[in-house]
Amino acid sequence: MTAPTGADSRLLHIVLHEPEIPNNTGNIGRTCVATGCGLHLIEPLGFDTSEKACRRAGLDYWPRLAPVHHASWDAYTAAVRPPRLWLFTTKTAAPAHRARFAPGDHLVFGKETKGLPDALLERYPDRLVTLPMVPGERSLNLATAVCAAVYLAVDQFLREGQVNLDEQGRLRRA
Amino acid sequence: MTAPTGADSRLLHIVLHEPEIPNNTGNIGRTCVATGCGLHLIEPLGFDTSEKACRRAGLDYWPRLAPVHHASWDAYTAAVRPPRLWLFTTKTAAPAHRARFAPGDHLVFGKETKGLPDALLERYPDRLVTLPMVPGERSLNLATAVCAAVYLAVDQFLREGQVNLDEQGRLRRA
Repeated sequence: MTAPTGADSRLLHIVLHEPEIPNNTGNIGRTCVATGCGLHLIEPLGFDTSEKACRRAGLDYWPRLAPVHHASWDAYTAAVRPPRLWLFTTKTAAPAHRARFAPGDHLVFGKETKGLPDALLERYPDRLVTLPMVPGERSLNLATAVCAAVYLAVDQFLREGQVNLDEQGRLRRA
Repeated sequence: MTAPTGADSRLLHIVLHEPEIPNNTGNIGRTCVATGCGLHLIEPLGFDTSEKACRRAGLDYWPRLAPVHHASWDAYTAAVRPPRLWLFTTKTAAPAHRARFAPGDHLVFGKETKGLPDALLERYPDRLVTLPMVPGERSLNLATAVCAAVYLAVDQFLREGQVNLDEQGRLRRA
């Protein structure tokens, strides 16, 4: 673990399980800073996240994001004790829009090529949700799916008054 | 215009005004095929969308997407006669979650570096919406913002019964 989790001050936490493509993780980091979410990266990663590599990739917001690295799923759950998990997968029929999200929830996404491993899905059978798609097509890009999931939750929070907007239309925790 | 619009069969239409970065438009195309949305590209574009260029970029879904090219904004509105527009911009306080979307709506997004031009925003002052963000941060990536907007609308359609899910949890027009 390379930074404190700051679990209580974050709107949501995005958890990436063994992400492979640096552009996606960079893009997801940008969604996290724009929406006040935390980011957890479960190793191994398919890329370098050193300060130098992030600077070279133009990720000027990376230090503010301060993503938390975890050596494994078990290390993540032991260190963070996530209050509630939602595992995003195409291997369930349960649509994300029927989930009741709460501030501080952890939204978990698998690697680009394979999604979350079956062993993890079997461990949390009642925490699986999906972004519904039309039949017979390719799945969504990881970074776009994360942003859609975050805004589904933010939309619920706004409708239920758990998050407010200031007069400029910016997000404020209620 | 290079293909028929197929306006009536699409869940929504995504309209990109002078997009600059090919990866973003490719990624948005992937969101469109996964969710049954149409894609309109208003020229000039910052990249090549020839069959050869798309094949080289691994955009195997591009022919199924059949994006419609338009020489200008006026050419787009004249050819398509969009029933209803929503212009996404950071220059409004009106949050997208208060919009009432309808199937067939057109969601319009500006170029990566500058967003939509002021002249266009001034032309449709009551059609502007934004994805709320925390104060003082960078904006969202274009492709992730489009996916979030699509799922905000899909979520409304599901809650209002304008779209259904089959037993595998896939999207079906009601």
